[in-house]
Amino acid sequence: MGRGLVLISLGLRDELDMSLRALEEARSCERLYMEAYTTVLDTDPERVSRLIGKPVTEASRELLEENADRLLLEASKMRVGLIVGGDCLAATTHVALLVEDSKRRIPFRVVHGSSIYTAVSETGLSLYKFGRSVTMPLHGGADTPYNVVCENMSRGLHTLILLETDRKTGRHVHVGEAVERLLEAEERAGRGFLDEETLMVGAARIGSVDQKVLADRAGRLLKEDFGRPPHVLMVPGSLHFMEAEALKALAGCPEELLTRAARPRRSLADVVGRYLRSVDKVLGDVRSSRQALDERARRVLEEAERYFMDAKHYFDRGDLTTALSAVAYSEGLLDALRMIGLLEFEW
Amino acid sequence: MGRGLVLISLGLRDELDMSLRALEEARSCERLYMEAYTTVLDTDPERVSRLIGKPVTEASRELLEENADRLLLEASKMRVGLIVGGDCLAATTHVALLVEDSKRRIPFRVVHGSSIYTAVSETGLSLYKFGRSVTMPLHGGADTPYNVVCENMSRGLHTLILLETDRKTGRHVHVGEAVERLLEAEERAGRGFLDEETLMVGAARIGSVDQKVLADRAGRLLKEDFGRPPHVLMVPGSLHFMEAEALKALAGCPEELLTRAARPRRSLADVVGRYLRSVDKVLGDVRSSRQALDERARRVLEEAERYFMDAKHYFDRGDLTTALSAVAYSEGLLDALRMIGLLEFEW
Repeated sequence: MGRGLVLISLGLRDELDMSLRALEEARSCERLYMEAYTTVLDTDPERVSRLIGKPVTEASRELLEENADRLLLEASKMRVGLIVGGDCLAATTHVALLVEDSKRRIPFRVVHGSSIYTAVSETGLSLYKFGRSVTMPLHGGADTPYNVVCENMSRGLHTLILLETDRKTGRHVHVGEAVERLLEAEERAGRGFLDEETLMVGAARIGSVDQKVLADRAGRLLKEDFGRPPHVLMVPGSLHFMEAEALKALAGCPEELLTRAARPRRSLADVVGRYLRSVDKVLGDVRSSRQALDERARRVLEEAERYFMDAKHYFDRGDLTTALSAVAYSEGLLDALRMIGLLEFEW
Repeated sequence: MGRGLVLISLGLRDELDMSLRALEEARSCERLYMEAYTTVLDTDPERVSRLIGKPVTEASRELLEENADRLLLEASKMRVGLIVGGDCLAATTHVALLVEDSKRRIPFRVVHGSSIYTAVSETGLSLYKFGRSVTMPLHGGADTPYNVVCENMSRGLHTLILLETDRKTGRHVHVGEAVERLLEAEERAGRGFLDEETLMVGAARIGSVDQKVLADRAGRLLKEDFGRPPHVLMVPGSLHFMEAEALKALAGCPEELLTRAARPRRSLADVVGRYLRSVDKVLGDVRSSRQALDERARRVLEEAERYFMDAKHYFDRGDLTTALSAVAYSEGLLDALRMIGLLEFEW
């Protein structure tokens, strides 16, 4: 590749997190930029420049987002490198740049690097058990992060919440503030997913020598000082016993929190399972009570039985939401019969 | 840190993916091992050894999993480095090793690296929109991967499926086989999530010069040769228009697949929204028809109205599963009234 755009990941914290490939690619570029607004790093263009041995210009949001034409025009004439903190494609901004580049048929290369998305495994939580992740913005409510946490929790999955930092003002959402805003959102919604006793994991500066990782009850994290940004907050879903052990050993989690968290309070499978057992019991009771039913009531009862069987079928196949709607519908049919006085039973 | 264990990420493909920090840490170790069975790399202990300038011994599964005592005993006496492909904590094996290490109060350090978990962003799919990920094993069914795909899809989320490789035999699950097994699982379950027209994304050797990324219909990926392992398969959920554009530009996705995939066929919000609209309509019809109802039928109708209001409430707050169970229950109550002949309406 002669001319073209090279996206070069810097990795988690500073220039020593660059891979040998990243360094080699950077050294082969005629012009180098460093993007320093989507991530918070322990380095700056000057230090990176010293390592590479070539000048490195700081790239503003304006250059990359509104004025990308200029950058791509350069890349169409010479080899231009853009150094980005973390993994260079974790932020959609840089994917967008690559798309623009590719539309103009300008060659490109990508060098990947370490990223907070995988480095959170240092808490002891397993990567494959994270549901979707979400950012908590500096301004505005926490309803979206809260909803994502509830959605993941109800499936037993962990949530990674990235906490926003404003590089210009230095203001950032710290762990305690994020916990507070989640608890406020819980209070407004009243869904019963979170309270001060909920196990959460706060982390700061993962990958640097002074990183801090702490798993504890929300009420404790509220008051904990995690120091300099970047911070992230994780809300675990259900825990495999290996994860529980790891949280204790690697993130100082108090023992008593683990037994509780290991059994999720309300996983969807639990909810549907409970529904199924209770409808199953009622159908059994009704059958053995041999109540005299009129023709129409019998048809409704048969329908309830049919939907119950469907619900079990979907439940066994792991389609929990279809199972839920079928069993709730069946319950509605049964309750209507009971309320009208055509069938006697107790839940 | 004098003695202790250093987990050193090698990164995605070969020794050039090691960070400067990884290299520095490796050089400071008195003994070096390289784990070469949880990932498939384009390098080997010999080449890594040449780069570091120190001997590197291949570490077997046996040493790390069954005989970890020996390794930890060494780490309690000298500085031992374990080099691992990808990010060193992406596999739970190494988290478990760290937990054992920490229980014995042996110091440890972790150096992170690039990983497939983030490198998949090269397809154009946004990282934060991935639900939980899953591995498709060499042997056994594809029911778990299929269930994870359905679970994620019903929430509009993407799924990353890691495809297993047996390093000893060289056998691996290739993209085509993974697609085939997913379609077979769909056929058995019959849930209607996947067919040969479904957009999927296959990728092989991401991060190396001969990487291959291709987004196309399942029926096409079935027949595509992706070459050497490692392979991964992604099943996208709903697509942001930027993701659709990126899939086209970066993964060669045919235009006509994007318009379809951008609207998920069955997101949970869609399903619940449809239920709500249909119950809302029936309740409105019933109210305006001013049917004469006996006391008990009126009570059931009021109960149906109450549950409908609850369902709307939970829907607005994003608690889709609670909304679903409430609206399905409401529908059951209404249908029972209709079947018994106490209320007339049409869905």
